[in-house]
Amino acid sequence: MRPVCFLSDFGLTDDFAGTCKGVMLRIAPGVSIVDLTHEVPGFGVATGAEILQHATRYMPADTVYLAVVDPGVGTERRGLALRTESGALLVGPDNGLLVSAAESLGGILGACALTEERFHLHPVSNTFHGRDVFAPVAAHLAAGVGLSDFGEPVDPSSMMRLSPASTLVDEGEGLVAHIISIDRFGNARLSVMQEEPGLEYGDGLRVDAGDGEMSVRYVETFGSAKAGELVLVPDSHWRLSLAINKGSAAHALALEVGGGVRLITPTDHGD
Amino acid sequence: MRPVCFLSDFGLTDDFAGTCKGVMLRIAPGVSIVDLTHEVPGFGVATGAEILQHATRYMPADTVYLAVVDPGVGTERRGLALRTESGALLVGPDNGLLVSAAESLGGILGACALTEERFHLHPVSNTFHGRDVFAPVAAHLAAGVGLSDFGEPVDPSSMMRLSPASTLVDEGEGLVAHIISIDRFGNARLSVMQEEPGLEYGDGLRVDAGDGEMSVRYVETFGSAKAGELVLVPDSHWRLSLAINKGSAAHALALEVGGGVRLITPTDHGD
Amino acid sequence: MRPVCFLSDFGLTDDFAGTCKGVMLRIAPGVSIVDLTHEVPGFGVATGAEILQHATRYMPADTVYLAVVDPGVGTERRGLALRTESGALLVGPDNGLLVSAAESLGGILGACALTEERFHLHPVSNTFHGRDVFAPVAAHLAAGVGLSDFGEPVDPSSMMRLSPASTLVDEGEGLVAHIISIDRFGNARLSVMQEEPGLEYGDGLRVDAGDGEMSVRYVETFGSAKAGELVLVPDSHWRLSLAINKGSAAHALALEVGGGVRLITPTDHGD
Repeated sequence: MRPVCFLSDFGLTDDFAGTCKGVMLRIAPGVSIVDLTHEVPGFGVATGAEILQHATRYMPADTVYLAVVDPGVGTERRGLALRTESGALLVGPDNGLLVSAAESLGGILGACALTEERFHLHPVSNTFHGRDVFAPVAAHLAAGVGLSDFGEPVDPSSMMRLSPASTLVDEGEGLVAHIISIDRFGNARLSVMQEEPGLEYGDGLRVDAGDGEMSVRYVETFGSAKAGELVLVPDSHWRLSLAINKGSAAHALALEVGGGVRLITPTDHGD
Repeated sequence: MRPVCFLSDFGLTDDFAGTCKGVMLRIAPGVSIVDLTHEVPGFGVATGAEILQHATRYMPADTVYLAVVDPGVGTERRGLALRTESGALLVGPDNGLLVSAAESLGGILGACALTEERFHLHPVSNTFHGRDVFAPVAAHLAAGVGLSDFGEPVDPSSMMRLSPASTLVDEGEGLVAHIISIDRFGNARLSVMQEEPGLEYGDGLRVDAGDGEMSVRYVETFGSAKAGELVLVPDSHWRLSLAINKGSAAHALALEVGGGVRLITPTDHGD
Repeated sequence: MRPVCFLSDFGLTDDFAGTCKGVMLRIAPGVSIVDLTHEVPGFGVATGAEILQHATRYMPADTVYLAVVDPGVGTERRGLALRTESGALLVGPDNGLLVSAAESLGGILGACALTEERFHLHPVSNTFHGRDVFAPVAAHLAAGVGLSDFGEPVDPSSMMRLSPASTLVDEGEGLVAHIISIDRFGNARLSVMQEEPGLEYGDGLRVDAGDGEMSVRYVETFGSAKAGELVLVPDSHWRLSLAINKGSAAHALALEVGGGVRLITPTDHGD
């Protein structure tokens, strides 16, 4: 039996996630279910996609990823099941939530639309495909049903993709990153992976978050920064994060999710 | 080994739910436990009963339901274990929490009071029977101990029942429903099941929530309503919900949990 | 396969706890994981230690306790794995979090520092040893790897210990306890176990929380107190708690975590 890794924006106040887990246990008794998080911001497809992609580094190789952040529920958007090169499977809506994770799992080897209604609960509600479509399909996949049984094949090139927030744009002077999320401490997680700019701990660089250039150091941990110092630090997802030790970078620099941040490394000036 | 479906008002900030799960694993190693929700409002027996009843549509047939919303803990209220026609079992306090779920599971075939202290933890605290009485009994049931071993038989007619919020009262003009809960978006879940009033999507009707009649449409999804429009929509529990698309029905109509809502369908006027 | 009992200060908003569980399932497929709580206050080592110690009364005998409240991550503080007299194992940072739980489990029979890097994930981050060191070690322990394989032996006397908040100081007149935590109702959990002062339900005594002596009754449940009455009650952890029925003791007496409370029993005056 494959384990299921379950991500959603359902929260834990209601019974939504619990009901989906009951549905899975009824189909696949004893299945292991890992709640990755159910606190993705409501309808936050890009945030959910980033968390799901990151999780692929840590979950078992044979995991079935069940991901439900689904603002398009009740419209014509397709439901998908994907098989990846690594052996892992993914289930969720065709809104960009799954693709970057699938690529981190080696790429899509097979895909189908969830058109076979015998694998769904009936009646299927208009508002809760997590319970009525995606959870039962994930459980059947965990129990060994083959991917092609769930519906018509889908050409991966036809799938919805998110605009590639993680791609750096080099505009001659520096790299332009985007802010993916801001945590409760005011640290801003950037779209740049830690290794991309070729920095070493201790390097000084300049950043421009829209309000002029500022000096910043790239440090290994908060402990290496002075109180109040603006720094770049690697975060738990191996991305760069703009932070102020014992302060809020988001507040000090008026940062917002989606905003651009230019990073000007010493190399950009020919040092 | 039967799975356990666990509902409570313990919240997740403290270790209450986690401790109950440890107790169950000690008695029934490897048991599957589904957290339905632990965020039932404190002492909200009626809310918990509605969530538990709804969950019976989705959980495995052999589930042991462990439900702990227990304002009477430490008083003389009985603890109960119930066997239902469907094969599912229920454990919890005799305060009305279990009965509607048991009826949805086909009705009560057997019941006992939890008087056999060898199945409890000792000492039994005065404030936490979830841990000391209900969780261990649920685990022993999951592991196969027979219902009658847990204590003296109980006549189902002697059990506490909640006033039947879900019963519609036809007073000549329309149906009178009650508001079961209001969610964080201000949508009011009514005591009426979706199919009860015999409505079709698109039907217009009138509602009176205490402040005069208003027009409302019955729609399939929020997406079918205009921004600011008052609508009736089916919710995730297959009940009717009074809602304003991109607004708060509760705020606009001053709705409160327990309040009455009269629904006047076209048929009520002989259309 | 041993079960894992997992405590942290990660919260549930992020994917931290979920990622650690994926790591464990990859190493130990099918392992049972109990989330004790992930809502220990941030960096609250003493609070986490008290919760962990209490949990040892309720978890399975062969549990692997994984505890991560780790303000010193990224510094030279050691990671530890401990074997106890009861057979249970513990994994976490050497900051006092584990020791009182280990003592409640019969004492430490063996201990090692987590120096064997083949049991860690690579690269090991500077900020998240829960995922990269402690979770994989806990999973390998659950799967049967021997304690001594994880690194160099450690002398228990060299381990960091918390100052013994639970020790009562008798200064001639009464016992001096400390406030371990204050819950959302304003009840103050004291460092005194219920049985320590030798009180019987109904006894009157005097308390001094820094602002003069007040009369208080020791009662079995809140239900035995009048509204607004200051009482001592046993709490769910079998400790004494200072509380006001239908009010906030913390607010009324300006109580704070860590503060001292003197309890003057009738016996202290020779009664």
